[in-house]
Amino acid sequence: MIEEDGDRAERVAGGGLLHRRALLAAAMVSAGGMAADAAASPASMLKPGAPLSGYGARAGSTAAIQRIVPRLSFPGTGSSRTPLQALEGTITPRGLHFERHHNGVPDIDPATHELLIHGLVRQPLLFRYEDMLRYPRHSRILFIECSGNSSTIGAPEPVQASAGQINGLLSCAEWIGVRLSTLLDEAGIAPQAKWVQAEGADAAAMTRSIPLSLCLDDAMIALFQNGEPLMPAQGFPMRLVLPGIEGNASIKWLRRLKLMATPAFSREETAKYTDLRADGLADLFSLRMGVKSIILRPSFGLDLNATGYQEISGLAWTGRGRIRKVEVSADGGASWAEAALDGPILPGALTRFRMPWRWDGTTAILMSRATDQTGAVQPRRSAWIAKYGVGQGYHNNAVQSWAVDARGQVTHVYA
Amino acid sequence: MIEEDGDRAERVAGGGLLHRRALLAAAMVSAGGMAADAAASPASMLKPGAPLSGYGARAGSTAAIQRIVPRLSFPGTGSSRTPLQALEGTITPRGLHFERHHNGVPDIDPATHELLIHGLVRQPLLFRYEDMLRYPRHSRILFIECSGNSSTIGAPEPVQASAGQINGLLSCAEWIGVRLSTLLDEAGIAPQAKWVQAEGADAAAMTRSIPLSLCLDDAMIALFQNGEPLMPAQGFPMRLVLPGIEGNASIKWLRRLKLMATPAFSREETAKYTDLRADGLADLFSLRMGVKSIILRPSFGLDLNATGYQEISGLAWTGRGRIRKVEVSADGGASWAEAALDGPILPGALTRFRMPWRWDGTTAILMSRATDQTGAVQPRRSAWIAKYGVGQGYHNNAVQSWAVDARGQVTHVYA
Repeated sequence: MIEEDGDRAERVAGGGLLHRRALLAAAMVSAGGMAADAAASPASMLKPGAPLSGYGARAGSTAAIQRIVPRLSFPGTGSSRTPLQALEGTITPRGLHFERHHNGVPDIDPATHELLIHGLVRQPLLFRYEDMLRYPRHSRILFIECSGNSSTIGAPEPVQASAGQINGLLSCAEWIGVRLSTLLDEAGIAPQAKWVQAEGADAAAMTRSIPLSLCLDDAMIALFQNGEPLMPAQGFPMRLVLPGIEGNASIKWLRRLKLMATPAFSREETAKYTDLRADGLADLFSLRMGVKSIILRPSFGLDLNATGYQEISGLAWTGRGRIRKVEVSADGGASWAEAALDGPILPGALTRFRMPWRWDGTTAILMSRATDQTGAVQPRRSAWIAKYGVGQGYHNNAVQSWAVDARGQVTHVYA
Repeated sequence: MIEEDGDRAERVAGGGLLHRRALLAAAMVSAGGMAADAAASPASMLKPGAPLSGYGARAGSTAAIQRIVPRLSFPGTGSSRTPLQALEGTITPRGLHFERHHNGVPDIDPATHELLIHGLVRQPLLFRYEDMLRYPRHSRILFIECSGNSSTIGAPEPVQASAGQINGLLSCAEWIGVRLSTLLDEAGIAPQAKWVQAEGADAAAMTRSIPLSLCLDDAMIALFQNGEPLMPAQGFPMRLVLPGIEGNASIKWLRRLKLMATPAFSREETAKYTDLRADGLADLFSLRMGVKSIILRPSFGLDLNATGYQEISGLAWTGRGRIRKVEVSADGGASWAEAALDGPILPGALTRFRMPWRWDGTTAILMSRATDQTGAVQPRRSAWIAKYGVGQGYHNNAVQSWAVDARGQVTHVYA
């Protein structure tokens, strides 16, 4: 029942993109088959089902949805990625939130964990987990993205890998905790203090220097993620969460915050997590994430198996507030059309975009391009490479492209 | 370091309630101890941690957070409840979403599952799961509440049980799926059609009649919950989700939608899920949930262990759009003050409220009262009982009360 009378939907750009209102045009879609007026009862109706349970399990047929874990020389040092192409919406399930550890996941007893606030303060303070639970809380839906996410896009040739393999150092959750400003105010900030060095209780003693202004803005000591206490891999019992800032600075297993007049210039902010530019200089403390979007469906590994209506869908986000719009191209950037955005569009969160598309069975090159509330636009890959050269692995927010061939197979291309 | 100079915060109601802006007043809170300027490295820093994993596990010390499962004669027939008092924010983790099954959880192979749309339609349609995945999707953060939730409040004497035991037939998730209106438009709605009978593929053949107007409004065939495909206990592979409507109508394992001129008047909408009033008449098809709120912290089982600053926190929701305000009382309803609401305040979702409170170690009776965008106000228990009498188990949205005694112990009371 594919509707062949395509002119009923308004084409808005090349390659078969339809106006985003076509999402509501029922006659466009139709994959349903005709049916008789009755259907036999399936086996599931003929015997009682499984009992209730204390903690829900996934359907067996979906158990293949797992984080993407590489083979590692040191199994606790590296990252696992969120399989973005297998997921929907914007909230990442807790078990699939990406991990990036520098020396494994520590096993911390919350009864003995302590957070020290010291350095340039009026009064050093030591907080037990139990203390922290007494403080006023707030909740926010926030993405965390590793600054090394999508570094694959810098490779000379396009790597054939899934959207999650390329971009899965990105997840989004409802984080609940205590405003860092509340704790810093209580410790009393000395006038000379301009930076805060945060340290984790892991065996890497993961350490980053963060401008005090960020800590007084919207930084949170997160205690809960999607309702429950943090998972060990996400920093249990407490984690710094910095909205819109590269994930490495959201220190997990947080044990220490030292107020300082200058950054510490630690390894993680000099040798690592700096952005070498094509002109030979490097940006240090390039903490805020850029505006970015990716198409997840279709994408590598999710080939098209029928012509006609398809929904192009993906995620957009920015380190600077809200996404304003996402444009999609089906002809390699020759023409663009504005996608529909699933609300609510929240600052610091992922935004899901959707674009109706009629695939006619010919070659197409799909791209997405996000614009945020500051007017910043996601750069084309050529512009990004011109600024950074190849081999720079951080903050790659270049436009990505999927090619669809006449058989519906999807490959990663540079366009 | 409890701030004894209490007059720095503005009292807004009796019993020690502070203005909601006091959430930002750091000097109010303070549970931190003084500290030396250095702390020894904990054991977790002295050896590498655990490896990365494909699907994250919870911290062992939080494994006690489980759904509340009663002993049942038939272990698949009954309900498990969300332990609301142990959770934070508004999104319920998938594994802790409440269950209500009438004959267990069916194990359904998505490759063979079909949804039939028939009855008063131009063309009956049969949808496989794979078909459904091709349709345009949208996502919404929505609560589902069983209409039998909080029925305990109707008991003659207050039951001493946790907030989740009393109110945990309530959960909230990001649901992603296909608008039902899209599918109904495609089948073609006959002019006589006014109701849709929905049937599940479970061994109870769970069946409810739903007004067509609701189905054409914001009803969804949900395929994903918090990012992943539905869990079996939540209706995998597909579930009807009706925003703001009693949970029983959001038919799980959806296999059939029959368009009809009248309701079916099935058991579930005549003998059950009807609201017997004190005047002897019963409300049928009282589908929309009322405006409601509950205090989760402190609550039964979460006693206070120190005087001074406390955060009173809970959830509010309504079947009619957005929550407008939540008021809290600490003196049994003699005076009320407006709570802070964590944004975003979304229609059909849970809203988290927070109220700063200075507990002086004397007896207090805590209550919350929600108002929604229509101006509807949560009724006092006495008003609710006057309307329905005792023993009516559905749609109990009466104000609930927790008493705090001088030792900090919390009990359930009627006030």
